[in-house]
Amino acid sequence: MKPAATDIAAVMDAGGPHLGVLMARVEDRLRTIAEPAGLPLSEWAGGTIAAGGKRLRPLLSLLAAGGPTTGEEQDALVRAGVAVELLHVATLVHDDVLDAATLRRGAPTVWAVAGRSAATTTGDFLFATAFAELARNDDPDQVKALSAASSGLARGELLQRADAWDASITVERYLERCELKTARLFAAACELGELAAGRSPALASFGLRIGLAFQVLDDVLDVSGPTEATGKHRGTDLLDGTITLPLVLARRADAELAALDPRSVVDSEAAERVCDMIARTGALEEARDYALALVADAKAELPARLEPSTRAALELIADGVANRGA
Amino acid sequence: MKPAATDIAAVMDAGGPHLGVLMARVEDRLRTIAEPAGLPLSEWAGGTIAAGGKRLRPLLSLLAAGGPTTGEEQDALVRAGVAVELLHVATLVHDDVLDAATLRRGAPTVWAVAGRSAATTTGDFLFATAFAELARNDDPDQVKALSAASSGLARGELLQRADAWDASITVERYLERCELKTARLFAAACELGELAAGRSPALASFGLRIGLAFQVLDDVLDVSGPTEATGKHRGTDLLDGTITLPLVLARRADAELAALDPRSVVDSEAAERVCDMIARTGALEEARDYALALVADAKAELPARLEPSTRAALELIADGVANRGA
Repeated sequence: MKPAATDIAAVMDAGGPHLGVLMARVEDRLRTIAEPAGLPLSEWAGGTIAAGGKRLRPLLSLLAAGGPTTGEEQDALVRAGVAVELLHVATLVHDDVLDAATLRRGAPTVWAVAGRSAATTTGDFLFATAFAELARNDDPDQVKALSAASSGLARGELLQRADAWDASITVERYLERCELKTARLFAAACELGELAAGRSPALASFGLRIGLAFQVLDDVLDVSGPTEATGKHRGTDLLDGTITLPLVLARRADAELAALDPRSVVDSEAAERVCDMIARTGALEEARDYALALVADAKAELPARLEPSTRAALELIADGVANRGA
Repeated sequence: MKPAATDIAAVMDAGGPHLGVLMARVEDRLRTIAEPAGLPLSEWAGGTIAAGGKRLRPLLSLLAAGGPTTGEEQDALVRAGVAVELLHVATLVHDDVLDAATLRRGAPTVWAVAGRSAATTTGDFLFATAFAELARNDDPDQVKALSAASSGLARGELLQRADAWDASITVERYLERCELKTARLFAAACELGELAAGRSPALASFGLRIGLAFQVLDDVLDVSGPTEATGKHRGTDLLDGTITLPLVLARRADAELAALDPRSVVDSEAAERVCDMIARTGALEEARDYALALVADAKAELPARLEPSTRAALELIADGVANRGA
């Protein structure tokens, strides 16, 4: 079971039949986009695409487009949603290689099925396909938005590795990492939807805030558990050397944590003990409050021009993010 | 020492001072493009960019643009050249991870310096940066050309792995792989240059042919040696399970080779023996003749509109490709 999160059915209801039709087109295209590449590539790419989850990013693109759209705008929107999801899936495939992960959402990873080389190359193929799909929209601004998010993702990943085991990182540095690793693609998803529908971008900051909140709450969940909700032991980030907001905040309140060398945490029992210490400082509430404030700001900032149904659906997505770890 | 190849100084001479100025701008941009990403990423990316070689692909872009160009076209051309080289370098960084290569042109690889994760991510960053740079040209056709070449590269890499150890592959299948892995990026380099200069693309097939010839001759060199020219043992492709044109052709003429299981070739002495057997069938000459015919066709097809200096420089590049392994 995954953490409580966005109720996709409720979002689809709120967004109206129009949204359902477009999401079905995104799914159709995602299912078939790798086929021309032939076997086995289409199978590897398709497997991860199919296991990819809730399609939060394409959903943001479709909703960010706002009210009624022309047939041509709908085609462009579908491509934007497909492109943003493909980029996301490309990073998942590479992450699975780097983490030597055998399962993703219950399905075997490309790394597990086909090995390191094939998985690295499958990820590269998905990256290229994302840009190929988006280029069909004939709008350089959309390509700029996606490539900026894509280079941000890589920079965030590298920042995280550069910061590994360093418990003295600042809150600002941690947030910069979250922005690069997670939030910018949420922002790009919104921006692409607006651009594809011929609107001037106004929702990027909504995407950025809920993306940041999404990552912060993910990091809180890793410390708070419960393991039944997350499907993994508490403290896996710590064991990986990834220092996140709860520890950064808790070190201010607890001298023992401030003195802790993360490398001394070598097994899951030790990690659980540190998680308990972090929890006792109130750092989890502080981090959660920070994320909830981001979500509240995101909702408050939604532009007045939005149709009520679109606004309701975007608010449900924001609430779903806030509910992670609630 | 690398195989005899393109005489870059002669190409620059033929192309005229204009070409030198633009290539210097490409180099400048390549040197600084990763800097905003901060250390250590900029160092890792920059190291491979700096070790990247002769810049054959940007050179093709600049030359394909043909005669005089406006200031704006020159800016676009430089970005096109930078983008095509960045995509090439991105694949090199990933190749080095997959091959666990410690050195590239005498410089340590990102994989050797920073490890598998950092190198995979550095490659991803370079991919993203290539598209970000090209998007600045505000021309969707250029993004389409680069993303098509990029997904072709990944498909070619995967085809090669799918075909590993299979000595019964056809010539057509081998050539398809070469086209995807190597030739399409040469073709895209030409096409990007033409598009950036506002010309209708006519040189893609020149790029495709010399790219194919480049790969075929590379594969001939792996069998023919001499090792002093290639810097590696003969038969490394065979030891990797990569079946190339010389063996495909030689199997038709030699029953022992036709019966050979590539997996039985387990050390460099055995590989050298197979290389000698291949050479005795005349397959190397046949493969080389095929490549030289491609180069001759490429030159014969150069469009009439080209300035004499541009034509001379492109012919020198084609001759340089033909001289690989001569």
